[in-house]
Amino acid sequence: MTKLLSFSIGGKSAFGVLEDEKIFDLSRRLPDIPDLRALLGAGGFPRAKAALAGATVDYQLSDIVFAPVIPNPAKILCIGLNYEEHVAETQRPRTRFPTVFTRFADTLVGHGGAVIKPHHSSKVDYEAELAVIIGKPGRDIPRERAAEHVAGYACFNDVSVRDFQGHTSQFTAGKNFPGSAPFGPVLVSADELGVVGPQRIQSRLNGQVMQNAHLGEMIFPISELIAYISQWTPLAVGDVIATGTPGGVGMRRVPPVYMGDGDEIVVEIDGVGVLKNKVVAA
Amino acid sequence: MTKLLSFSIGGKSAFGVLEDEKIFDLSRRLPDIPDLRALLGAGGFPRAKAALAGATVDYQLSDIVFAPVIPNPAKILCIGLNYEEHVAETQRPRTRFPTVFTRFADTLVGHGGAVIKPHHSSKVDYEAELAVIIGKPGRDIPRERAAEHVAGYACFNDVSVRDFQGHTSQFTAGKNFPGSAPFGPVLVSADELGVVGPQRIQSRLNGQVMQNAHLGEMIFPISELIAYISQWTPLAVGDVIATGTPGGVGMRRVPPVYMGDGDEIVVEIDGVGVLKNKVVAA
Repeated sequence: MTKLLSFSIGGKSAFGVLEDEKIFDLSRRLPDIPDLRALLGAGGFPRAKAALAGATVDYQLSDIVFAPVIPNPAKILCIGLNYEEHVAETQRPRTRFPTVFTRFADTLVGHGGAVIKPHHSSKVDYEAELAVIIGKPGRDIPRERAAEHVAGYACFNDVSVRDFQGHTSQFTAGKNFPGSAPFGPVLVSADELGVVGPQRIQSRLNGQVMQNAHLGEMIFPISELIAYISQWTPLAVGDVIATGTPGGVGMRRVPPVYMGDGDEIVVEIDGVGVLKNKVVAA
Repeated sequence: MTKLLSFSIGGKSAFGVLEDEKIFDLSRRLPDIPDLRALLGAGGFPRAKAALAGATVDYQLSDIVFAPVIPNPAKILCIGLNYEEHVAETQRPRTRFPTVFTRFADTLVGHGGAVIKPHHSSKVDYEAELAVIIGKPGRDIPRERAAEHVAGYACFNDVSVRDFQGHTSQFTAGKNFPGSAPFGPVLVSADELGVVGPQRIQSRLNGQVMQNAHLGEMIFPISELIAYISQWTPLAVGDVIATGTPGGVGMRRVPPVYMGDGDEIVVEIDGVGVLKNKVVAA
């Protein structure tokens, strides 16, 4: 009971547990809980375990369509420039504070869903990231208590439309196209992942490794991100922090590599999962 | 029936019409509509008028507490650097595209509510702005059809925590402290305001004029903002675009002027309203 997910089946939204490639449906066993975000605020993993005591499998993996792990986060906070190699490739100065921009929830895509290449641009780039999902609300959270506020982790692809990102000083435009943020496949509990650091994080475009680093290379570790962000905005259950991407993005390659119709982009993080999506032209 | 508002009375949230300093309560006449955002999507101003045919006054102005005009916008898109004098005082280059950053809805404050000076900073600054409230959803809205998507206008104070705003390239941290975005007092219909341009926009700190310009001085007019933004994010009913602030912000004065406990800050826009708030130290 350490992997939660949001999905749809027969067009209906649901949430549940993934175990040994089988799906246990929590929605129908907890009808007063509307979605996975609400479950995290109402008992989380232990509640899921209790609800499934003695349960038999509901669906096979092939029966369901993955939704974004949390389909409706109130806040999605994305960190820029949080791996040394990526800071270097962007030729930006290293900052004393985390660089934070935001996404709207309507940019999110589930595992297996389409990353949309908009007709407005041909500069669509991948960014493999670890997403942190908040499990306990807080403001002014001290660094040493940050871990208590983490429900768990998922893979995230902070797909960026580079020309729009560079229109002005603010990244907003390039980070908010619909269908630009794969998030999943599942939420792995913080306990299950353990210490964040040694795990490898990779992106692969059509099978070729494009980014390859370890989570321990983050400049601002998760505890510092939570402490900093919660100084100026309250964190709520289900909020998401995408913790930044390693070096190797397409834009900074010579020549640049951008994604187009039919490409397959994968984000893989040891112990967290494999998030695979196809790019589809709008 | 050209001024809508959100308010609370006896601790209960409501919305209605302001006319001749009297309040007509729409919530109890339209019980299936939960809030002003929903009303805008379900008939808007004409629906309000129909619901109040023959109605008598419900409350005096002094009976109610103003809420943010739209308490729960899904998206708040803020424009930076949209008046020449402000661009000049920030010493930033003029850009070919609008500069867009975002706020979370939990930063909003109603007319008369407290602007919170956080204990984290002493660099709290005002920014008088015109807010545009979206009345019809859309994506890729052409400039010449943008006006159809505007429900109306309100005053906005894009209060900024300057040291946090300057921590990195992204403004997010300085623009998202709770209690930092007065928004109101009312939503004036687009028809009522008419052509946007000749109206004066002012901020006054403790009675002293700090910013003084005309809406026509915007570098990117409202139609261009809507066209640009809707390229990369769908606009929904109740979404808010804060259209940028004129020159004269406190940070760029010599010496700088920041707001502290007990200060009164007013944003006034001809034909839109007078938005007054007190600053309260956290």
